[in-house]
Amino acid sequence: MPERLIVIGGVAAGMSAASQAKRRNKELEVVVFERDPHISYGACGLPYYLGNVITDPDTLIVLPLEKARKDRGIDVRINHEVVELDAKNKKVRVLNRETDEEFTMEFDRLIYTTGASPVRLNVPGVDLKNIFYLHTLKDGLRIKKYIEENKPSKAVLVGAGFIGLEVAENLAHTGMDVTVIELLDHALGTMDADIAKIATDEMERNGVKFKFETKVEAFEGENGKVKRVITNNGKVETDFVLVGIGVRPNVELAKEAGIELGETGAIKVNDYLRTNFSYIFAGGDCVEYKNRITGKPAFLPLALNANRSGRYAGANAAFNKDVEKFPGTLGSAVAKVFGVEIARTGLSTVDAEKAGIDFESVEIVDKTQAGYFPTKEKITVKLLAEKPSGRLIGAMLAGGQGTGLRIDVLATVLHNNMTIKELSEIDLAYAPPFAPTWDPVLVAANVGKKKFK
Amino acid sequence: MPERLIVIGGVAAGMSAASQAKRRNKELEVVVFERDPHISYGACGLPYYLGNVITDPDTLIVLPLEKARKDRGIDVRINHEVVELDAKNKKVRVLNRETDEEFTMEFDRLIYTTGASPVRLNVPGVDLKNIFYLHTLKDGLRIKKYIEENKPSKAVLVGAGFIGLEVAENLAHTGMDVTVIELLDHALGTMDADIAKIATDEMERNGVKFKFETKVEAFEGENGKVKRVITNNGKVETDFVLVGIGVRPNVELAKEAGIELGETGAIKVNDYLRTNFSYIFAGGDCVEYKNRITGKPAFLPLALNANRSGRYAGANAAFNKDVEKFPGTLGSAVAKVFGVEIARTGLSTVDAEKAGIDFESVEIVDKTQAGYFPTKEKITVKLLAEKPSGRLIGAMLAGGQGTGLRIDVLATVLHNNMTIKELSEIDLAYAPPFAPTWDPVLVAANVGKKKFK
Repeated sequence: MPERLIVIGGVAAGMSAASQAKRRNKELEVVVFERDPHISYGACGLPYYLGNVITDPDTLIVLPLEKARKDRGIDVRINHEVVELDAKNKKVRVLNRETDEEFTMEFDRLIYTTGASPVRLNVPGVDLKNIFYLHTLKDGLRIKKYIEENKPSKAVLVGAGFIGLEVAENLAHTGMDVTVIELLDHALGTMDADIAKIATDEMERNGVKFKFETKVEAFEGENGKVKRVITNNGKVETDFVLVGIGVRPNVELAKEAGIELGETGAIKVNDYLRTNFSYIFAGGDCVEYKNRITGKPAFLPLALNANRSGRYAGANAAFNKDVEKFPGTLGSAVAKVFGVEIARTGLSTVDAEKAGIDFESVEIVDKTQAGYFPTKEKITVKLLAEKPSGRLIGAMLAGGQGTGLRIDVLATVLHNNMTIKELSEIDLAYAPPFAPTWDPVLVAANVGKKKFK
Repeated sequence: MPERLIVIGGVAAGMSAASQAKRRNKELEVVVFERDPHISYGACGLPYYLGNVITDPDTLIVLPLEKARKDRGIDVRINHEVVELDAKNKKVRVLNRETDEEFTMEFDRLIYTTGASPVRLNVPGVDLKNIFYLHTLKDGLRIKKYIEENKPSKAVLVGAGFIGLEVAENLAHTGMDVTVIELLDHALGTMDADIAKIATDEMERNGVKFKFETKVEAFEGENGKVKRVITNNGKVETDFVLVGIGVRPNVELAKEAGIELGETGAIKVNDYLRTNFSYIFAGGDCVEYKNRITGKPAFLPLALNANRSGRYAGANAAFNKDVEKFPGTLGSAVAKVFGVEIARTGLSTVDAEKAGIDFESVEIVDKTQAGYFPTKEKITVKLLAEKPSGRLIGAMLAGGQGTGLRIDVLATVLHNNMTIKELSEIDLAYAPPFAPTWDPVLVAANVGKKKFK
């Protein structure tokens, strides 16, 4: 009898885990249970599907079902929900949602990749029609269908996170009158207000409206359909509401099974993605990961964390040997809204203050290309460095084309615990269409390092 | 009497040095002698000036003469050539090229930043009219004037280095029929042939012709003007020739003064940019710098090396104290030709072989954006890693928009002596307009690290 690996959840982390385990151990029986009808899709593409940048939703599928089954030899069961996990006795109870039948399956090892779910608004009127959450491909298809059939002219986004801003841009591109409502005094809560403002100013220039420090108190409707949003800061008429106020990890099944949760409420794993049951691994958006800067667990549901943790969990589960150590996360993120690119890595000012780190910050404005190059655009670089060491602990960028990719240099700097002076010494490449001779990142380091003498 | 610093040469390194020294030591008298009429210009912009991307040559001036004099308090003398350097007695003899008068000036410290000069072709007919070298702003103005007055329809570039390709692209944009002649079997001698080919294929698609493994044997003219190029591989009719077959350091004056040269023929300096005379510093394109990968001196006349070495030499010369240590160079370089971006850092295959390093290489082809994103383009990533350690020693990239800036991640990886496995662990940022979930750089590392088990 071959050993059996069960994977719960078949999106980013789950299919990465299953593929990696099977690739490393051809003898292993790998069974994936996915509750929804779709596996392995790029959820980050959904805003662009709503905005018609991507027209065929099938292109969002990274690994088609038949390919997973035939080419990779993975036993993928869609519309199958694991309803009970018996961690001690190594078995799961599974509901086939098409036939409504249940069955039990034993496993040698299990990888738990159930992802996260949108945080729900709990206000009067929230059950009205045309109030949506965008999380799964199923959600995306439903919203797109609604837009095509009803051609709404007004949309309200509740929540101004990365996805919220991307959705707002995309809906604005389709001609909708878009208002974003946010509880905080600025967008992108994981970034500093002054940097986030560069993105939202650009969106305002392109017709998107923002209501900051605004709390949704109720939805009002007509004929069962949402018609306006009531806030502490006035009413907004709308045809259509999309709520994106964050996600929380799907840990119910794990919790019932005795799998330990961490301080963030997500699943706690060791460096090899093992839970407190050594034969049960976890990965993806339901897990907390070590923040490389603070050394503490953080809940950062980001695509690369999900894919990497899945891949590494699969590698370790393949022969039940610790072969791939998860390197932790920097919370690196990037987005484009109209002509502005905005990015972060490491800690924001709020993050650093919460972590009790004494630090200096430096912010410079420069150009994305040589000063004499006609297509140059503005770029703002903000760096945070620990005192007195000068170690970089965070970076934020906002500006024109070429801004976003620069965050990867800073992520690499943080990965290596470099100081701001060391950053200033890197031999970055230069040509007029790409940067000034001293890249803006180096300019910020040159300015900032003076604070650490 | 205040101390006096003399700087020989007032372009990138020289003006960086003078500015930095004066900024740090307000009491210091700083005198710059520049042979040409222009100081502190962005020579890397010259190809774009020829191509009318940049129309006003004044925009190429980084620090205008009057600003250098009045705002920064630097005594800049243009059209002044230092004709003798008496290193032991700390004085220079200077020729005022406007008045033809000579004078002597003493110094306490000196920074030698004379730059490099184009290597000259030595073949029959090389003195015909309309054969140019593009190195200084004066050259650029002369060539542009020639183009505007004579409207040549055919151009030959001799030499397919980074600048050569940029010039070829720019001339092609103005409608000229452009042929590039190169001695090697591929362009960009500092890069691997297969990567360089991605750029030259793109140029050929856009009408630029290449003749590789071709040696210029003579130029033939009519009425004293060049009309054709005679090679070992046929003749090329032309109105206009631009030669860019490399540069050599301007070291004559230094050599005569007893300043030690290094094994590359450029000036030898220590980590603080001091020559064998402790009060004489050197920087810019006339100096050899430590290659961080091989640990050996290298002649890599690149803009950031020049600006950084000037700045650091100025900092150290300010009070004659070692305050800024030059970090060495990776030879990072990037260029854009039509729709292709091409970049390098560290060692190429030829470099690594010459250095006697045992290494593995990996090359992958991926996309610049998420696979489902409609504007995605191809990107090729090639990594070289030392055996058996897996330490990255070089990287080359070629592909569509967003390729070039990625070299800076790899420069940062090389700066930190990271292994290919460590590269695969960096938390790079992801969003569909910027990258696939696993950035192509990470994909190359994931593939390559398997060779180091």
